[in-house]
Parts: sequence; C-alpha cells; structure tokens
Amino acid sequence: MADKNTAQETKKQAWRERLYEIIFEADTPAGKYFDVVLLIAILTSVFVIMLESVESIDARFKNGFTYAEWFFTVLFTFEYGARILCARRPIRYIFSFYGIVDLLSILPTYVLVLESYGMESDELHRLGVIRALRLLRAFRIFKLGHMLSGAAELREAIWATRSKITVFLATVVIAVVIEGAALHLIEGPENPGFSSIPQSMYWAIVTMTTVGYGDATPETPLGKCLAAIIMVLGYSLIIVPTGLVTAELAHAGGNFTATRITTQVCPECMKEGHEVDATFCKFCGSRL
Amino acid sequence: MADKNTAQETKKQAWRERLYEIIFEADTPAGKYFDVVLLIAILTSVFVIMLESVESIDARFKNGFTYAEWFFTVLFTFEYGARILCARRPIRYIFSFYGIVDLLSILPTYVLVLESYGMESDELHRLGVIRALRLLRAFRIFKLGHMLSGAAELREAIWATRSKITVFLATVVIAVVIEGAALHLIEGPENPGFSSIPQSMYWAIVTMTTVGYGDATPETPLGKCLAAIIMVLGYSLIIVPTGLVTAELAHAGGNFTATRITTQVCPECMKEGHEVDATFCKFCGSRL
Amino acid sequence: MADKNTAQETKKQAWRERLYEIIFEADTPAGKYFDVVLLIAILTSVFVIMLESVESIDARFKNGFTYAEWFFTVLFTFEYGARILCARRPIRYIFSFYGIVDLLSILPTYVLVLESYGMESDELHRLGVIRALRLLRAFRIFKLGHMLSGAAELREAIWATRSKITVFLATVVIAVVIEGAALHLIEGPENPGFSSIPQSMYWAIVTMTTVGYGDATPETPLGKCLAAIIMVLGYSLIIVPTGLVTAELAHAGGNFTATRITTQVCPECMKEGHEVDATFCKFCGSRL
Amino acid sequence: MADKNTAQETKKQAWRERLYEIIFEADTPAGKYFDVVLLIAILTSVFVIMLESVESIDARFKNGFTYAEWFFTVLFTFEYGARILCARRPIRYIFSFYGIVDLLSILPTYVLVLESYGMESDELHRLGVIRALRLLRAFRIFKLGHMLSGAAELREAIWATRSKITVFLATVVIAVVIEGAALHLIEGPENPGFSSIPQSMYWAIVTMTTVGYGDATPETPLGKCLAAIIMVLGYSLIIVPTGLVTAELAHAGGNFTATRITTQVCPECMKEGHEVDATFCKFCGSRL
Repeated sequence: MADKNTAQETKKQAWRERLYEIIFEADTPAGKYFDVVLLIAILTSVFVIMLESVESIDARFKNGFTYAEWFFTVLFTFEYGARILCARRPIRYIFSFYGIVDLLSILPTYVLVLESYGMESDELHRLGVIRALRLLRAFRIFKLGHMLSGAAELREAIWATRSKITVFLATVVIAVVIEGAALHLIEGPENPGFSSIPQSMYWAIVTMTTVGYGDATPETPLGKCLAAIIMVLGYSLIIVPTGLVTAELAHAGGNFTATRITTQVCPECMKEGHEVDATFCKFCGSRL
Repeated sequence: MADKNTAQETKKQAWRERLYEIIFEADTPAGKYFDVVLLIAILTSVFVIMLESVESIDARFKNGFTYAEWFFTVLFTFEYGARILCARRPIRYIFSFYGIVDLLSILPTYVLVLESYGMESDELHRLGVIRALRLLRAFRIFKLGHMLSGAAELREAIWATRSKITVFLATVVIAVVIEGAALHLIEGPENPGFSSIPQSMYWAIVTMTTVGYGDATPETPLGKCLAAIIMVLGYSLIIVPTGLVTAELAHAGGNFTATRITTQVCPECMKEGHEVDATFCKFCGSRL
Repeated sequence: MADKNTAQETKKQAWRERLYEIIFEADTPAGKYFDVVLLIAILTSVFVIMLESVESIDARFKNGFTYAEWFFTVLFTFEYGARILCARRPIRYIFSFYGIVDLLSILPTYVLVLESYGMESDELHRLGVIRALRLLRAFRIFKLGHMLSGAAELREAIWATRSKITVFLATVVIAVVIEGAALHLIEGPENPGFSSIPQSMYWAIVTMTTVGYGDATPETPLGKCLAAIIMVLGYSLIIVPTGLVTAELAHAGGNFTATRITTQVCPECMKEGHEVDATFCKFCGSRL
Repeated sequence: MADKNTAQETKKQAWRERLYEIIFEADTPAGKYFDVVLLIAILTSVFVIMLESVESIDARFKNGFTYAEWFFTVLFTFEYGARILCARRPIRYIFSFYGIVDLLSILPTYVLVLESYGMESDELHRLGVIRALRLLRAFRIFKLGHMLSGAAELREAIWATRSKITVFLATVVIAVVIEGAALHLIEGPENPGFSSIPQSMYWAIVTMTTVGYGDATPETPLGKCLAAIIMVLGYSLIIVPTGLVTAELAHAGGNFTATRITTQVCPECMKEGHEVDATFCKFCGSRL
C-alpha cells in the first residue's frame, strides 16, 4: 500500500512538474501556448476595464462588461490557484512581486460584490480601476522569445552607470528645490501658481523636463529671466544621462559576451535569469 | 505572317522595356528627368491642395484651383496607366503599396465629380484632402542620387536594435496604461481631463513625450506629485532608445561595408534595394 | 616725380595693409584689441535696442537712447568705411554676407531721420528693430582664440552626415503634411485650430517637436488617438539625427587630424578657414 | 609651566585634529557617521521649510514648525562654530563657498527675530525661504562612498568639450536675440506676448527649449511660419551638445585612468579632490 501511495505520489509529483513547466516556463510548446493565451486574456480584460471607465460606453454595455469581468476574474482565479498548487514553495510565490500583482488583479471584483451593499456606486467604480494592474502581469510574458537578451543588455548598461545617475538625480532634486524656493520668493505673493514651495517645485519639474503645461507661468520680469535660465539648464541636463548610457552601451557592445538566458524560473526561490547551460539556480543552488 | 507578328511583338516588348526603365528606374538620363518632373508635379499639386484648404484663399482662386487639380489628376492618371502598361506583372503593381497610393491620389477628384450631386459641399471638400497622400509618392523619388545609402544605414541600425526597441515600447505602453488608471483614480471625479482611462492615457502620453499641451493638468496635490514622477520618468525614457540606436550606429560605422545600391526595381516582384553588381533579383530570382 | 608717386603709393599701400590686418584679422595684438572693442560696442548697442523696445523704459530714457544710438551708428559707419577702404576688392566685400549685414546694421538709423517726416512714430520704431541684426556681426569675432577648431569639428560632423539628415528632414516634412491633412480631415469642421491644412501643419510641428503650446489641441477621440501616435513618433524621431551626429563625432574624434586654422581672411575672395601653413588662399589661389 | 602649556597645546591640537577629521572628512567611521546625521538634519529641516510655505499646513502646525526651526538653527550654529574652531585657517573657511552657504542657512532665523518688530509678517515669511539654501550643503555629503569618481568623470567630459559648448551657447544666444527681434517686428503691435524684444526673447527661449507654455503664441500666418522654423531648429540644436559630450565620454571611457579620490579636504586651502596616494595638497603644497 505504501508502494501504491508512493506511485501515486510520484504520479502526482510528475503532474505538478508538468504543470509547473507549462505555467512558469516558456521552453516547451505547451508553455509557450499557455503564455500566449494568458497574454491575450490579460490584454482583452484590460481593454474591457478601459472601455468600462468611459461613461457613455459603460451605460450602453454595462451587462456585457460585468459578464466579461466575471469571466476573466474566474479565469485568473483558476490560474492563481494553479500557480500556488504547482509552486514548490507556495508561500514564497504568494509574497513575491508577481504573486501580489496576481492577487491584486482578481481581488477587486470579489471585494466589489461583498462591499457593494455599504458603498456608493461611484466609489465602487473607482475601486475597479485597480484591476488595471493586471497589465503588469504582461511583463512576465516577455520571457517569450529572444526579447530577453535585449532587455538584459539595457539593464546592464543602466546598472553600470548607476553611481553617475545617482549623482545626476541628486543634483536635479537639489536644483528643483532651490529653483522652487527662488521662484516662490519672486513670484509668490501675486501668482497663484507659485503660492508655496511644493507648488513652485511642481512648476520647476514641469519646466525642467520641458513638458511646459502653462498652468503656472512666471509673470514678473525677474521671474521670467530666472525661468529662462532654468529652461536652458533643464534642456541641457538631459545630455548628461543620455551621454552616460550611450557611452556605456557603445562600450558594452564591444565586449558583451552574449550569454543566452533561458526562461526558466527557479522552483525554489522564484528568481529568473538563468543561463542556458545552468543546471543549478545561481541564487539558491537548487536544481532547475 | 507569324514572323511579322513576332517582330511586332519584339518591337512592342522593346518599347515597354524602355518605358519601364524611364518610369520605374533612375539610372538612365531619361529616367532621372522623368523623376524630377514627377517630383515637381507632386509638390506643386500638394501645395495647391494646401492652399485650397484655406478658406479665404479658396474663395478668391476657386476656378484656378479646380483647373490645376484637373490638370494634375489627368497627368497622374496617364502616369498610372503607363505604370500598369509597362509593369511585367500589372496585378502585382496595382496591389503593391505604391500602386494603392498612386490610385488613391487620383481617385478623389473623379469621385467628387460623380458624387457631387448627392453630397453636401463641405463633405466633398473634406474628401479632397485625401489627395494629400500624393506626397507619399515623393518617397519613390528618393531613389535619385546617393541619398539611398544614408537611408539604408539608418534603417539597418534601427533594424538591428528592434528587439530592444520592442521591449522599450511595450514598457512604455504598459506604463501609460497604469499611469492613466492611477490618475483617473486620483483626479477622476472632479477633473474633466481625467474623466476616463483612455482620456487619462492621452494625458499620460502628452506628458511622457514632454509635449505638455496643458489641456488636462492634475489639480490635487497627490496628482501633481505623481505627475512630477511621470515627467521625470518620461524625460529619462528617451535616453534608452537614443543610446541604443547611437551605439548601434557607432558600431556599424566601423565595419559597415559600403554596398552600393541601385535604383532598379525588380520587374517581377516590384521590390527595391538591389546592389550594383546584382544581375538577378535577390527576392524572387528573376533577371533585373 | 614718378618715383615720388610710387613711394607715396607704396606708403599708402603699407598703411592699407596694416589697416587690413587690424580690421579683418586677429593674429596681431592690434587686431585682437580691435575685435574685443568691436564686440563690446556691438553687444552694448544691441542691449540698448532691446531696452528701447520696452515701452516703459523707452519713455524714461528716450533721449539717452537716441544719443547712444547715434554714437554707435557713427562708430559703425566709420568701421564700414574703413573696411571698404582697406579691402583689396571693395565691391566683393560690399556684396559679401558680412558686408550686407554691416550695411543693414547702420542704415535704419539714417533712414529713420530721412523718412521720419512722412511716417507714423510706431512704424518708425519697428523699423529700428532691424538694427538687431548687428548681433550677427558678433559671429565674426569668433575668430578670436581657439574657439575656431571646436566649431570646425562640429561643422565637419554635421557635414559628413548631410545625406542622412536630408533623408530625415524630407521624411519629417512629408510626415507633417500628411498628419496635417489627416487632422484637418478629422477635427476640421468644429475645431478652429485645424481649420486649414497649413494651420494643422503648424499644429503638427508644434506637437512633433514636443513644444506643445496648447493653442490648438484635438478634441475628438479619433483626433486624440492620432495625436498620441504622432507624439510618440515625434518623440522618437529625435533619436535618429542625434544618433547620426554622435556616431560621426565619436568616429571623427579618433582620426581627426587637428589642423590648426588661422583667422586670416583671403584679401581677394573674402573667404575664411585657411590653415596655419597656408601661403595661398585655397579657394581662389591668391596670396594671403 | 611652559612644558605644561605645550602639553596642553598639543592635547588641544590633537583634539582639533580629531574634530577636523570628523567634520571635514569622511574616511573615518566617526566622519561617515557625522555626515549621515548631518545629511538627515539638512533634509528634515528643508522638508520643514517646504511644509511651512504651504499656508494651510502652516496654519495648523505653526508652533511645531517654529520649534523645529529653532532646533535645526541651533544645531547648525554649533556645527558652524565647530567648523570655524577646527579649521586651520578659519578666515579662509568663512569666505569659501561652503562657508558662506553655512552662514546663510542659519542667519535668516536670527535676523527674523531681530527685525520682526519693524517688518510685516508677509515679508518675514518670504525671508525665511532663503534657508532653503541649506540644501546646497548636501552637496558636501557627496563625498560619501564611491559617487565621487562618477561625478569626476562627468565633469571631465564636460570640461573637455567646453570650447565647443561655448561656441554652441553663443550661437544659441545670438539666435534667441535675432528671433526675438524678428517676432517682435511681425507680431508686436497686436500680440501682447511679443510687446518688446526681451518679452519676445523669453518666448524664443520657451520655444527653442521645447517647453512651450503657451502663454505667448504667434497669431499671424507669417509669425506661425517663422515659429515653426524656430521649433525645428531648436529641436535639432540639442543634438549638438548631446553628441559632443557623448563622444567625449565614449572616448574617456577607453583611456580613463581610474584615479581613486579621497574625501580629504586640504586643511590649509580648503580644496578637495586629492588622490588616495597624495601626501601633500596638490594646490597649496601643505601636508594633508
């Protein structure tokens, strides 16, 4: 009987292994097929949420949207359950980044039903927007195909210049605060767009990034003069990080060893990015 | 009599060959001359369409514009006929990209005459705007001179970085949706510029590309705070593709074998981009 | 008596040579000194013109501005006369780019006096603005010092990529026309910002360059959708020329032979950019 | 007794040395700890100043903000005193850039108390904004860790291209003045946004940097046409400095000798940037 149990256990284990490969990886045809179907489901459901937020469309197709939403929620709930079932360490999966996103993308629909008795319709509607986080799950599908190496090279170039980018960002933040304080001092009393330092800092960011809404503009000659200097500064600032990352990429391109990365996820620590010839996880040492 | 027929056929064939070289290629003096005349005709006719759309100018020169339009339409119709006549596979030409553009740039004038009885004057006027597509035909003239190699190198650099650019664009789209949903949640109820997710996504794109019209701006402190983060993000995002293409070009510059490309179009499959020493089309194998 | 004449001639010639070196070149101490004084005079006079255009300041210092303007006009008139006097080919100087700028920067003051009887005060004031062209003369002073080689390297990189930049600009122009026509078609009837194709093209340029004034914004969902695509396109377009020039500069930096360029101007053809070891003008062959 | 004095002197000297290392350097654990505490104090105090400027928040927590402000002022006063005390040449420190910033960041609080009898509440409030300069002191903390070398490489690349950047900036300034004058001439009489040349120059900068507030926009067809040209020009201009710095960085990356820089400040001349193996200050020769 123990034997039978073990055989059953082994069978169950094999079944879980197979499910794991389909859901978490994209090396097998079944895994790829699963990812493509999931991607289509995610995109469609987010598209429905987008349409739902347009009042005139929502008024006409309210029932259709509700049915679609329940269909996707049930689908994603099954998928969430399957992921917990086949992960070797379910707790770790649940509290991983994607685990939380997976939960957040199904929870609102259930919460809406439970709480719909005590809340106003408008607030309920807004809670539903959280489901748009579903789209974050699409990042998981990037494991498909050869996009991975492109992303890896990029990440490497940005990582290699992180200390310079930190210096740059700190300089920008300090500049924004000083500029905000200066324009609050000059324009403050008369101009509502500069009524406080945080307000002026918002203006400084809008200006330095060259967005320039025009909802707050300097009106005094001195303010305009200072604003012009800030604009030229902000316009020039972009040069620095562009140059840094580009130079890094140009170098990397030369001696970048093209390590092929697989789509396998470590079944123990849930980390990705393992190379093709890896047999053990390079983060926790468990067999892949 | 069969001989006479064959001779006539050969003569006709030679005549078609000659027409083909003039119209589709730019290697012979006649071919270059034809292209220059065509380019001038296209630019003039588009200029007329532009002026026609300005009401005050249209009111004064209405007759002149009508005559000019008919002149260009008849000219381009003859050209379209000649292209069909001398192409070895007319059907393929008609359904090629340029074949459709050629047709679309003459059709509206004829349609306007036929349908002018049943439609309002304003709608007719707007249909005429489609003729501006004529300008697309100017791209064909780029075959002239040595601009070709410049364009080819560019295209190659963009193509070589396509997988990275795809990852980048997917990230941007996901960011726009999430940001749109977030600002719809925060600003939604009071601010008409964020009344739905698509509306908020439009704002997110206007902001991330640093265009910043100012037709929709956040008004709550939290919305402004989030908008500031999005701006800095959007401003930084441009670094990534710039760096990628630049690095690619810097590399290409080193080992780019300057293959000279001719302006010949394959008479069978209508594809361009053949090298100077090519005798057969590299796409379909037929003799050039 | 012929001898005396020749001696006088030679003396006059030597005097002209000396004047030529001071005014047109910057290799001698006197030449440098002259350039610095001239630069200060130009900047001061342009500053006066700027202040004069501000109504409230003009009302208070009207007399002072008039005196200053006459002082600078007389000064620049003397300089203009001296340049004609010492140039070997005065006619060529007068019709060269800088010759015309020199004339345009003194003429308005004299014209204002002559014509002030028949014109209104406001129109006169506006004519005076032309004198701001004086600032263009400051470019001549860039001959000073080692700024020259920096500018030369830049010009070279831009020149080397000219065929690619031409393709790029032609593409942008075609895109602007097509986009303008498309948005005129969609937004035209209701939105005054898209009332004609040229008007829509202005909007397309404002959008593609990410300036985004907000004086014309799409209002229909379809128009917004198309505008969003144009924005992303326009935002991406800048990558191409940036990459091209950067890659060119990165290459040039490697094998750029640092040819030292002098500030000498060819006395015959008025062209600049001669190398240090040049004895004859490389454009017209005359002795420097 | 002389001995006792000397011993006391030596002891005092050693104590000052120790204080100097803690306050001015970051090589010892105590020095690092001091810098981190100081950074937190600076950031917190600037955050308080920011909140204080928001009227609604200030009304509620007025007392708390006053106490916090006095706490930080006293703290920074002690620090300022300690810096004067342990610097070998106190006068030089007081008149160095950071010495003045240190003073300016504590002075307003004291001045406010002294002068609060004779000034209005609103003016007092605005004086307090000067304390935001405190944030500049955070730059001193960048000595922490390995950020230094990143900043040094950046500064080097910008410095190496300074002559080219000067040519570029001069060209931009001249372009702004000429464009401002041109649009003042065209749009001036009717459009309040172009009422004077400085006003038009402000518009030209807003446009060329692609900020595009929309507070001043051309309204005549000619003005729009010129504005479109300026936009394309301004949009293209950014290419030049980007290319220059990037190319420089790409080169520097190759042969940049990674000299390790310490956080030591010369006790004599207060200059920073000494290398790890330096025993004497490379600026004034005194022992480090």
